[in-house]
Amino acid sequence: MTPDRLSLNQWTTRRWSVREAVDGCVRHGIPAIGLWREAVADQGLAATAKLVTDAGLRVSSLCRGGFMTGPGLGLDDNRAAIDEAAALGAACLVLVVGGLPGVSPGGGPGPGFSRDLPGARARVAEALSVLAPYAAERGVRLALEPLHPVYCADRAVLSTLGQALDLAEPYASERVGVVVDSFHVWWDPEVLTQIARASGRIASYQVSDFLVPLPADPLLGRGMMGDGVIDFGPITAAVEAAGYRGDVEVEIFNADVWAADPDEVLATMKRRFAATVG
Amino acid sequence: MTPDRLSLNQWTTRRWSVREAVDGCVRHGIPAIGLWREAVADQGLAATAKLVTDAGLRVSSLCRGGFMTGPGLGLDDNRAAIDEAAALGAACLVLVVGGLPGVSPGGGPGPGFSRDLPGARARVAEALSVLAPYAAERGVRLALEPLHPVYCADRAVLSTLGQALDLAEPYASERVGVVVDSFHVWWDPEVLTQIARASGRIASYQVSDFLVPLPADPLLGRGMMGDGVIDFGPITAAVEAAGYRGDVEVEIFNADVWAADPDEVLATMKRRFAATVG
Repeated sequence: MTPDRLSLNQWTTRRWSVREAVDGCVRHGIPAIGLWREAVADQGLAATAKLVTDAGLRVSSLCRGGFMTGPGLGLDDNRAAIDEAAALGAACLVLVVGGLPGVSPGGGPGPGFSRDLPGARARVAEALSVLAPYAAERGVRLALEPLHPVYCADRAVLSTLGQALDLAEPYASERVGVVVDSFHVWWDPEVLTQIARASGRIASYQVSDFLVPLPADPLLGRGMMGDGVIDFGPITAAVEAAGYRGDVEVEIFNADVWAADPDEVLATMKRRFAATVG
Repeated sequence: MTPDRLSLNQWTTRRWSVREAVDGCVRHGIPAIGLWREAVADQGLAATAKLVTDAGLRVSSLCRGGFMTGPGLGLDDNRAAIDEAAALGAACLVLVVGGLPGVSPGGGPGPGFSRDLPGARARVAEALSVLAPYAAERGVRLALEPLHPVYCADRAVLSTLGQALDLAEPYASERVGVVVDSFHVWWDPEVLTQIARASGRIASYQVSDFLVPLPADPLLGRGMMGDGVIDFGPITAAVEAAGYRGDVEVEIFNADVWAADPDEVLATMKRRFAATVG
C-alpha cells in the first residue's frame, strides 16, 4: 500500500490538537487523518471540518461510536457521533461496541454488572438495527471493530472478524462495514479467510504492532510497526485482495510513543509503514 | 457437575509439594488431582505414583507437555512427559503448544525469533504427528489446550477450540483430545458450538475465572470462580452435553491465591465450585 494511502489516526499523536495534527499531516505529506470525537469537540466541529478541508486531507475515520451494551444501548450518543461523522465527511464511523454491562473500560465490574455475554452481543445487534438506518440517511458508513479478546469484558464483546461480519450481514456493505485492525486480529487462525469473506465490506484498515510482553495496561500494548510480533505482509495482501482501496490508519496507543516528539513519531511512522505495511 | 468430579490442579496450591497436595485432597474429600511435571520431579515419579495410588486419588491430568514450535519441536521432552503421564496413570497429558519461535513465555522476542505464525502452527501439527503414535503405544491421551489469544505470541499459537479440534481431527478421539479451560475460551463467540463439536474429544475441563482488570502480568489474571466475569453455567452445560464425564480441575494462577493458606483455598474452591460450576 503506497504512501498516498497513509493516514494518521490522531490518537497516535495524542497530545496534538486537531489543528496541530492537521498541520503535522501537511508538513509530512500525509494525505489523510483519522479523527477522535473528544479532540474534535475540543477544536469545534465546524472548525475541524474547515481545517481538514482547507488542508486537503481526507478524513479516513471518526473514532468512535459504540458502547451499546449498557442501558439505552447508547443510542443518543451514537446518533450524535453519526451526525459528527456526516459533518466531517468521514469515510466511516468506527464502532467499539462495549463490553459486558456494568464493566467500565479498563475498570472492573460495577453497578449493573452482568455476566450475560450472549445478551450483551444481542444488544449490539439491536442497537445496530436502530443506528444503521439513521446512518444511512446521513450517508455515514458504520464500521464494526472487533477488538482483541483480551478486551471482551470491558471494551468490546465483538471479538473476531467473523463475528463482525455476521453482525454486518443484514445490511448493505456500503452502509455497515468492518474494521481490520492488525493489533486486534493478527492471532486469529481465521483472519485471512475472514478478510477474504469481508470483500467489499472493509471500511477501515488500521495498523499497529502487538508488543510482547504487553505492558501492565494492555490497552497500551500497541507499538510502531516492526516493534512487535505481527507479520503485516499477509494481512495487507489479504486486505488488498478483498478490494479495499481506502486509507490505512496508523493507530498506536503507547505511552512511549505519546511521550515522544510527535514530528519524530510521524517521520518514524512513514518509514515503518513503507518497510512493513506498504 | 457434582463434588465427586472436583479435581485440584496442584498449581492452584503451588507452594504445596505433591505430598502436601495429595494430603490436602484427602483432608478435604477431593477425589482427583492434576499434577505438574516440575512438582512430580521434585517428589520423584515413583514416589508420586505411590502417593496418589495409596490415597485413592485419580490423576485428572499431567501438566504439561508442548512447546513444540521451536527447533527440534520439543520431541525429546514431550516423549519424557508422555512416559511420566503413563507412569502416573494420568487421564491425559495437557499440551501447551508454544508461541512464536524465539519468544520465551512471559518474555519478548529473542534469538531465533520469527513472525511466521502459520509456520509455527504447522510445526505443532508436525510434532503431533510424531507424538500421537508414541503416546498411543503407551496408553496416554494427549490433550491440546487452546490458550487465550493474549498468549498467542509467547505461550500458545493454538488460540481457539475450533483450531484445536481441527488439529486433533486426524487422530482417534481417545488418543488426541482437547482441553476446555474456561479462562481461555469464555470470550469465544463459537465456544458453545465448538464444545458441541468436541463431543467425545474433551479430555479435560479446567475452570478458573477471568479477572477484570487483568493484573500487570496477564498470566496471573485467573481468579477463583465467582471473582471474575465468566458465566460458568452455559459452558458447563455444554461440556456435559458433549458427553464429558471426567474430572473438573480448578486451575488458578493468581498471586493472592498463592499467598493464601492452601487449606483455606481448598475450602473456598469447594464452595465456589458448587455455587458456580457444579
